Amino acid sequence: MDKNQDLYKYEDLFNFSKDIFNKIGCSGEDAQLATKVLLSADLRGVDSHGVARLSGYVRLWEAKRINAKPNVRIVHESPSTAVVDGDSGLGLVVAPKAMQIAIDKAQKVGTGWVSVKNSNHYGIAGYHAMMALQHDMIGMSMTNASPLVAPTFSLERLLGTNPIAVAIPANKQAAFVADFATTTAANGKLEILQRKGNEAPLGWIQDKQGTQTKNPHELKEGGALLPLGGDRDHGSHKGYCLGSIVDIFSAVLSGANYGPWVPPFVSFLPLPKDPVGDGIGHFFGAMRVDAFRPADEFKSHMDNWIERFRKAPSVNGEKVLIPGDPEREMQAERMKKGIPLLEPVVKDLTEVGKKFGVKF
Amino acid sequence: MDKNQDLYKYEDLFNFSKDIFNKIGCSGEDAQLATKVLLSADLRGVDSHGVARLSGYVRLWEAKRINAKPNVRIVHESPSTAVVDGDSGLGLVVAPKAMQIAIDKAQKVGTGWVSVKNSNHYGIAGYHAMMALQHDMIGMSMTNASPLVAPTFSLERLLGTNPIAVAIPANKQAAFVADFATTTAANGKLEILQRKGNEAPLGWIQDKQGTQTKNPHELKEGGALLPLGGDRDHGSHKGYCLGSIVDIFSAVLSGANYGPWVPPFVSFLPLPKDPVGDGIGHFFGAMRVDAFRPADEFKSHMDNWIERFRKAPSVNGEKVLIPGDPEREMQAERMKKGIPLLEPVVKDLTEVGKKFGVKF
Repeated sequence: MDKNQDLYKYEDLFNFSKDIFNKIGCSGEDAQLATKVLLSADLRGVDSHGVARLSGYVRLWEAKRINAKPNVRIVHESPSTAVVDGDSGLGLVVAPKAMQIAIDKAQKVGTGWVSVKNSNHYGIAGYHAMMALQHDMIGMSMTNASPLVAPTFSLERLLGTNPIAVAIPANKQAAFVADFATTTAANGKLEILQRKGNEAPLGWIQDKQGTQTKNPHELKEGGALLPLGGDRDHGSHKGYCLGSIVDIFSAVLSGANYGPWVPPFVSFLPLPKDPVGDGIGHFFGAMRVDAFRPADEFKSHMDNWIERFRKAPSVNGEKVLIPGDPEREMQAERMKKGIPLLEPVVKDLTEVGKKFGVKF
Repeated sequence: MDKNQDLYKYEDLFNFSKDIFNKIGCSGEDAQLATKVLLSADLRGVDSHGVARLSGYVRLWEAKRINAKPNVRIVHESPSTAVVDGDSGLGLVVAPKAMQIAIDKAQKVGTGWVSVKNSNHYGIAGYHAMMALQHDMIGMSMTNASPLVAPTFSLERLLGTNPIAVAIPANKQAAFVADFATTTAANGKLEILQRKGNEAPLGWIQDKQGTQTKNPHELKEGGALLPLGGDRDHGSHKGYCLGSIVDIFSAVLSGANYGPWVPPFVSFLPLPKDPVGDGIGHFFGAMRVDAFRPADEFKSHMDNWIERFRKAPSVNGEKVLIPGDPEREMQAERMKKGIPLLEPVVKDLTEVGKKFGVKF
């Protein structure tokens, strides 16, 4: 942790954020839900997607690009699928509601799959996937995002960091929770390097000529993030495939904007011309474990899987981790000790509070 | 193409392979199906998974590890899911039958998801996913495989190259078909380097100490393939997540062997002790496009997606490809000019033919 980061209690950040969401017109229930989703990012250590973004959502609302009282509704469905129109609501509210529809469908026919249009940034992907766990279901969550990533051999950014999250229940062991951007490194990591003036490893970014560079600022000078793999020799075409699948499932299936047409999160950037759909898109899945085999049987084999992987001999001084381990440990620590916020974030939140008469 | 590779007509290889499958006791229908799946790998340029493996299947049958007359059946199901027991049949036969079940379920309730146990190597992942295309469905296919891959920080191999294939229909444009191992490089590429005595790029393999190496032979000296990403700095934990998800969906959901317990393809290696399930596992999915939005609408947006990506400005002399482009071009060429086979493969097939009185 940086020395210039003070620690804030979860409850305090929760009450502050909820008040702000209430002030922009969210119902009490929606403000509560949005806050829970937003802060789960801070708890799990994905600081770029947490309370640091609160002012961004407020600015989108000020720009009339977020509807605080959305009518989130199914516009097309089959027994195991739905397309949900988010009505320009906060992604933080639209996403868990859409995931709940996937869970409800899975209760009835074994699995549920929901593609969402007309939404915006939905916070941390893993939150929504993890909603399935308490129902003994496998949960999936993905979203497209504004273009920052160049496909293999492209000079142009055509994809977002398009994350995928998959949550799988176990019994004695904690759940398996994978949650990752389909790029070599998430944009949040670049922002940290930019702020600190550090170099990036080669393979994270290319400059505007398409050459790999260590300079994280090239991203703002016409460069691009690279798909997982980094370059063709190291499988960047696979990361490009993954990012594309997320884009298509989230947006071409639902009728949202895809590829270079995905609108930016920040309100000061203009919306892309000639949109091909509505807002940004997400995709959610829920699979009832007992639609495949008895849940107890499955979960005890998951315990065995996890225990076996954990005890693999490892490279000096390192541990073989199970997906979700670092985030769970971080959450336990931050619930106890508090959530660190950078000074500019504190300043930003103080300003937002002043605007609405809420003390930070 | 190597100079020492003669070209063989698809029809000739087809008839030969079909005859061999008949000779080991497959029904006419199953022999036809197994051959079609096997040779689609040769056509699409995935030479390691094609006719070069025919003798391997025969040896597994000789070792009584393949049942030529399997009763492939559903052992557990819900309206949108099934677990299929492959009855130790050829994966080349079990897989398309299981995928057909997924498609049938999707016809009825929008999507179908099938996890398979008691199977073995299923050929090229993309074949099965592509079965969905003619029904205006999105197809998915994945399989686990015997352990060659070390998770991030592990010295031990715990995962197979566990490929994922996703096929998405378009209208005027050819379908989007992603088909990739969840490692930096597929094992087939290593085999080529080993044979030619060439070095591998760093990031493909580690030696038995867990250090990255360029020597492709280290894989046989206690080393391991690396998950997509290569190392922690370049996101190997994401490739590890992907390989794990494939393993769990294919085998923990179905009741097949997972992780280090997955049986080897080659008959001369012993089966792992204390198996945790039956055979190897696969996972298939089919989603009816019109369970989300009208199929014509979806497919015309896929055309737009594909055309937009294709025309991105690119790095000198390269082209931005759409997943499936190289394989489709290869297939057109090989159907016309023939399929190149390495001399050891020709020798191997000749031997197999002699054993059963079939001329190669």
